[in-house]
This record gives sequence, C-alpha cells and structure tokens, in this order.
Amino acid sequence: MRNLTLLTDFYELTMMQAYHHAEVNTGRKQRAIFDMFYRENPGGSGYAVAAGLAQVVDYIKELCFTEEDIGYLRSTGVFGEEFLTYLKSFRFTGDIHAVPEGTVIFPREPLLRVNAPLMEAQFIETAILNIVNHQSLIATKAARVCWAARGDRVLEFGLRRAQGPDAGLYGARAAMIGGCAGTSNVLAGQLFGVPVRGTHAHSWIMSFDSELEAFRYYAQLYPQTCILLVDTYNTLKSGIPNAIKVFKELRDSGKPIGQMGIRLDSGDLAYLSKRARVMLDEAGFPDAFISASNDLDEHIIAELKAQDAKVTLWGVGTHLITSKEYPAFGGVYKMAALSTDGGQWQNKIKLSEDPVKVTNPGVKKIFRLYDSKSGKMKADLIALADEELDNTKDLTIFDPIATWKRMTLTAGEFTVRELLQPVFENGVCVYPEITVPEICEYAARERSTLWDEHKRLVRPQTMPVDLSQKLYDLKQEIIAQLRS
Amino acid sequence: MRNLTLLTDFYELTMMQAYHHAEVNTGRKQRAIFDMFYRENPGGSGYAVAAGLAQVVDYIKELCFTEEDIGYLRSTGVFGEEFLTYLKSFRFTGDIHAVPEGTVIFPREPLLRVNAPLMEAQFIETAILNIVNHQSLIATKAARVCWAARGDRVLEFGLRRAQGPDAGLYGARAAMIGGCAGTSNVLAGQLFGVPVRGTHAHSWIMSFDSELEAFRYYAQLYPQTCILLVDTYNTLKSGIPNAIKVFKELRDSGKPIGQMGIRLDSGDLAYLSKRARVMLDEAGFPDAFISASNDLDEHIIAELKAQDAKVTLWGVGTHLITSKEYPAFGGVYKMAALSTDGGQWQNKIKLSEDPVKVTNPGVKKIFRLYDSKSGKMKADLIALADEELDNTKDLTIFDPIATWKRMTLTAGEFTVRELLQPVFENGVCVYPEITVPEICEYAARERSTLWDEHKRLVRPQTMPVDLSQKLYDLKQEIIAQLRS
Repeated sequence: MRNLTLLTDFYELTMMQAYHHAEVNTGRKQRAIFDMFYRENPGGSGYAVAAGLAQVVDYIKELCFTEEDIGYLRSTGVFGEEFLTYLKSFRFTGDIHAVPEGTVIFPREPLLRVNAPLMEAQFIETAILNIVNHQSLIATKAARVCWAARGDRVLEFGLRRAQGPDAGLYGARAAMIGGCAGTSNVLAGQLFGVPVRGTHAHSWIMSFDSELEAFRYYAQLYPQTCILLVDTYNTLKSGIPNAIKVFKELRDSGKPIGQMGIRLDSGDLAYLSKRARVMLDEAGFPDAFISASNDLDEHIIAELKAQDAKVTLWGVGTHLITSKEYPAFGGVYKMAALSTDGGQWQNKIKLSEDPVKVTNPGVKKIFRLYDSKSGKMKADLIALADEELDNTKDLTIFDPIATWKRMTLTAGEFTVRELLQPVFENGVCVYPEITVPEICEYAARERSTLWDEHKRLVRPQTMPVDLSQKLYDLKQEIIAQLRS
Repeated sequence: MRNLTLLTDFYELTMMQAYHHAEVNTGRKQRAIFDMFYRENPGGSGYAVAAGLAQVVDYIKELCFTEEDIGYLRSTGVFGEEFLTYLKSFRFTGDIHAVPEGTVIFPREPLLRVNAPLMEAQFIETAILNIVNHQSLIATKAARVCWAARGDRVLEFGLRRAQGPDAGLYGARAAMIGGCAGTSNVLAGQLFGVPVRGTHAHSWIMSFDSELEAFRYYAQLYPQTCILLVDTYNTLKSGIPNAIKVFKELRDSGKPIGQMGIRLDSGDLAYLSKRARVMLDEAGFPDAFISASNDLDEHIIAELKAQDAKVTLWGVGTHLITSKEYPAFGGVYKMAALSTDGGQWQNKIKLSEDPVKVTNPGVKKIFRLYDSKSGKMKADLIALADEELDNTKDLTIFDPIATWKRMTLTAGEFTVRELLQPVFENGVCVYPEITVPEICEYAARERSTLWDEHKRLVRPQTMPVDLSQKLYDLKQEIIAQLRS
C-alpha cells in the first residue's frame, strides 16, 4: 500500500496550517461538511458510474506524515514547527459517507460527504477528487462502450496509452466496473481478481518466416485459446485462409480444443468481419468467433453494429483508457456546512452567475425513487439528512430550476432507496471489503435500472435530480440572505 | 520503488512463453531490435518533447517476477512450469538507447531502441509505451502552453483532475520538463525537487464571516507570499478592494514583505485583469502581480495575451494534466530487425496501405542537423547505425515520400549531433542520474533551437525528418521483396 499523504495540492497544506494557527491562537475550532459532486455527465452521457471508493478508503487509512514528509515540508520554509509537530500525529478522525462503487449517478448529487474537523476535511480534498474523478470517468466510458456493444463482450486493451501506470491499473479496474468482460492488464488481474485476456501481436508473426508457420506454432501451444491475428500481411488473401488451415489441423489433431477465433486490427471492420464470417462458416467453423480492435470507441462500435458487422468481441484501447473524447470528470468538493466551537451547522453556499452552479447547502442525503412494477429508476431526490420519505403517500417532486416541471409518484407505486452509505465513522473504516467482481455484479444491476432512453449515446433523456421542498426552501433562504 | 513487472499486456506473456518454448524445444535463439516512435505530433503541434526515460530506467532496473507474481501467473492456467521457472531468474540483459528527456522530437524517429533477446525485448513493450507515451504527451502540452504564455510563468495545477495518482505525479514532472515554473503537487515537489506553489481556496474565505477577515488572517500568516483569491463574492466590488486594504495594512505593518498578488478564478480574465491592474496601480501596488486560473489551455492563453490581459502568472489544471484536447500520445513499438541463432540482422518492415505508416527497417540512429550561425535546427536525418556524417562536405537530404523535396546544407555551415544515447548495456544501466531541474534546463535549451514557426499552435511549419540515402535504399529494397 502506498502512502499518498503528500499527493495533495500545496494550498491544502498552507490553508491547513492557517486553520491550525487559528485554532491554537484564537481557540477557534471548526468542523465542516464537504460534498463531492459533479455538474455535468461526461461526453453528453445520460448518467455516470461511481468508482474509486476502495482506493479512497485505502488512502484515508494510510494517511500519515512520515518523518521524511515532515522534513520535506520543513525544507520549503513555509511551515512552522508548531504545525509540523501537529502533523506528526495527524490522522483522519472524521466521518465519510459515499455511494457504493458501481452506482449509477447524476449531476449535482453528493457522491461522497465528509464530516470532519475543518483541517482534515480540507486536506483530503485533492486526493479524493483525483481518485474518484479518474475511476468514475473510465467506468462511465466503459458503460457507454459496453452499451454500444449490445451484449457482446468488450475487453479493455489500453494500458500502453494510459496516462501512466496507475491510469492503466485503476483504469482497468474502473473499466471492469463499467461492464468490460476482461482486460489485457496483468497487474489488474493480479490485484483485483478480474479476467485477463490477450493472445499475440504482429511481432509474433514477424518473428517467423511465414504467417502460416507462426499461426501453427501458436495453435500447437495454445489449443485452448487459439485466437489468431490475421492482418499482418493481407487479411482476406493470407490471414484468414491461413487461420482456417490451422483451425482444421487443430480439429484433426485430436487434441482437446477450446475457443477458436480471429482478431482483425485494421481495415474496414464491417466489410472484413462479414467476409471473414462467410469464410469461417464455409470452412466448417461457425463457432470460431471474430474479434476486432483498432481505435474503437462507443460511436464506431454502435455504427458497426448497425451495419451488421460480424464481430462479437471488441478490444477497446486508447479511447476507453483515456476516455479520449472527454478525458476529465469534473468532480468538485465544496463546503456545505460549517460549525464553529461545537455550535450548530451553519449552512454554506457558493454563489455563481449560473444557477446550475450554485451549490446545495446543508447536510444532505440522496433518495433514489424507483417504479415498483418495472424496477426502473424514476428520479433522484436530494434531501436534508434528517428527512424521511414515506412511499405510502403520493409524492410530488419538482425541478429546482424550472420549478413548474413537476412529477407525482403515486402512493404504493414507487419504492425508495437511500444511496449514501457510511464509510468512515470517527476515523474508523466501517465499510465492508467488496471484491471487484462483486462490485461488477452490483454495477450491472444498477445499469439495468435505467431505461435505454437514458443510456442512448447521443442526446439521452435526462434523469430528474430534484431537491426536497425543505432543501429547496433552505437554499432560497440562504441565497436571499447573501444577496441582501 | 514499485515493482511494475506485471504492468504489462497479457499477450506479452503468452508470446514470451511461446518464444521460450521455441527456444527450448527447437533451439531457436532470437535477438531483436525494437524501435519506439510515434507517427503524428499530438494536437497538431509542430514538435513533441520526450519525457519519462528516468521512469523507464527504474522500471527496467526493478524488473523481476516475485514468487507472488509467479503464483498469480500459474493460477491463470495458461503458463507451464518450465516457463514459470525461467521467469524466476528473468532479468533484462539487453541494450537500450534513447534520446535524453527534454529533447525536442518529431514523428517517425526512433526515440528509444531496444536490442535484446526477443523474449525480453517483447516483454518490456507495454510498460515502456505506457510511461513514455504519458510523460511525452504532458511535456509536449506544457511546452505549448508555456509558449502561448510568452515568458510568463505557468504553474501546473491539475492534480485533482489527473487520471489517477501517477498521472498527477508524473504529469507534474513532465509539465516541468515542458517548461512550467512550478506545480501544486506536493509529492512531485518532494520526489523531484521542483518548486511547489499554491495559496488558498474559496473554502478558506467561506470559513470566515467576511472576506476581509479571511484575507487579513492569511496575510498575517503568510506575509512572504500573500496571493489572495479575489472572486469568492464579487471580484471588482469586494475581492480586489479588500485585497488592496490588506496589502496596505501589510505594507504599513513594517513586517518584511515578499510577493503580493491576486488570483482570478472566474469571469472574463481579460477584462478583470485589466481592471485589477488599474486598481492595484492606483493604490500604489504596481508590483503586485495578477495570476489567473479557470479551465485554461494554450489557445485561451494566447487569445488573452493577444487581448493584452494583465495576467503574468497562469495556473493551468485540467487541460494540462490530461492534455484534454488530445489525451493520448500515439507512441508505438515495432520490430526493426531480427537475428536468429547469432546470425546477422534481418531487417524487418511492417507494411501498411498508408506510405507514412510503413516502418523503417534496420538498426538506426538519428542525426540532428543545425544551422551553424543561428544554432537553430534544420532537420533530422534517420540513418543506419553504422553511418557517419561529414559536415565538411555539402549534404543533400530529401523527403522520403515526396522525394523531389530536397535541401542542401552547405559544407561548414551546419553542425551535426547524434540523438540516441546509451542507457543500458548488457542489462546494466549506463545512463547518468540527472535531476529534474537539470532536465528542465536542457529542455529549455532544446526548445530554443526551434524557430517560432515550428512552435506556432496552429498549422506550424513541419520539421523535415528524412532518411539517409542508405536507409532509404534498404527500405525500398525490402518493400520490393515483400511485394514480389
């Protein structure tokens, strides 16, 4: 486990020293609530997928300033001994609530809520954002790519183009949460217990005098997973005929045979896969599958599917592992309430010219509302933490900007689920250890609660994320106060 | 130091086992040359900046399969005991040459050349690409952003939006190599000895009853670096007047004062910075500087400079740390030559429909040609490793695709420098340890060898990257052979 304590913006430490100074010199003791949320789904998606919480948990557990860290901070000349001494025994002592990994999420709802002494709550901002922003970005991208593949398996193949080792490793993890069936990343397989996949590259073919010889050697060695890359010289004239020759030899060898297939890595994948399907079928290999790679993303996969391409296994690299079209998830971390010297919470708002950017004040939770019959999601309702929802009564919710947009859920016809779960209590982790395969199962169920209308790649239907009447009123009141 | 041995694509290991099997069972011993190169400058840039070599060196040095790694590989059911036993004593035993970090680079030239037993050369592909692709991407982006800032300092502020911890850490390192003056990333400061910067966030202001009180407290504590964020409530009506009040108090306090300045983080940065400049000047603070952040990239900085914005310090986050507009550097790793059983090199080519994508065969090096008088770069010439260049004779070089495009360098009026440096010899690192600040100095000199015409953000002049006559002839010969 790496200690990522100094993986932070410098200003978190300068602010922290200032808070500490105020506490020591003026006796001011402050506690704060911060919410992590985001404002817009990446890439025009109708939803996003939360991921990264397990790494946040690890980060918080390992938080501590080593002697070396303190020595480094001293060397900057910015920090005094009083503060450095405080850092020696620094641990996170607060509470964290969060939505479980794999949860389908929407803009403006608190995905993670920190309640801690101001110094601590402030300090952990940068690393939490770094981790959750990254993994949620890739999980969301993967969900879109897998949706485009309509039930075909998608493999994550992007390690060589990932933004450094962690981006490859945790990107593979997030891609699995988003719905991928496997990854090429061996370290991800080792650390997270997810399936790893891959066969051979062009260089394997080039290391033999002929393609046929290269295929033959490979098939002999790996009769169980004989997937041959057929585009090194000429896909239709050389690659596929040679692959078929080798598949026949394998069948005739009497050896136990596993899956057979080919991989296309260049050229027009619609045309080539259809021709390949005919050639394989005519040669007596209707079960040999066709996989494809080469700069794929959700849009080209959707187009290829629409053109009836005969690919049933998709290897997606650069576009998935960097979320190339929209490579940043705009998660932010904003103060929602502050308590001074043990007093009650003062609710906080950050104003903005843009109404959508005005933050939601107070200690909040999220109710997710489902249609009882279909099990599909209807809306999210952000409420104050002390509110309860009664589904035996009709419930009317409304858009917090266009307040005339209202929806009434009929008593008994909807169910309610609270999303935020306790993760740390008084600095102690209370969150269960969940394996990545378990998260993947949960995440698949989560995605199945959305209609395809919300999952459409382009201009999807917007999921309502409303405020409870009480939270709405509180927000208006604070805005009015600040404006006056 | 992390052991990243399993940070690889699964197919590197399946191929490796197959190579090993061939060696053990048929006695075939192969050695290969692989080149890492890229085909297109990212984002329409006229050049790129190489970075990441130090991390490649660390990776190669640490390469080894632990018992745990081998246990994991065994558990996949794909690897035999003979191969797993071989992995136990696996070390890299080959040679690596590379261009130094910070070097200005161009498409198609070998940035890194591996000469090693085929199994080893193949295996290290994925991690090398991962590391060099990432850091070269960010160094290139940073160079463009810094160029747009025309001598103003640029700070890297992107950690919270980086694609995971490493992307933040090594992205900060690469950003420094690309020309940034500092980073907010404390861990990068600690590990790489680069300047860290940052002051406070909106939450600092929000934790006080008034902005003035928050500024005052901050200034008292940090009189040496009093940079105040002025946009929490209203930049012109509240933030700047309050900052000026506090600057005056600071000046009148008799304390030793360091730099004073403000940070703008929203609104129109051209308008606000000009207004701020006037207000600060009129209040007697002509030296107080104006910094700006908020979703900046090279294009908006260039536009703001063109509009005479009074910003002289730029904080660049998301766009820099993810290279948002073009988040992947397309480095590839291709076999250039193969030797079997100690025989001479067989030169290898990967054909493609697209002439630019046909790889260059053989063991190669790069000559960089400079104009003697100006010291500016004229062209790169890729040649075979045994070629020498004589700058006391005229030299005519030509474009390898449009061969009628020729340029003659006059004897005595040009100088030659070879770019590839030895990094590993027989598995032993022979490369000097260079600090990041040293790399930054070298990188700045490198960038100064380019005319602005090559650095222009949009449609820059293309730098010629030609082939020596000998290499060109070899390539044509192999293509003709393959075609017949």
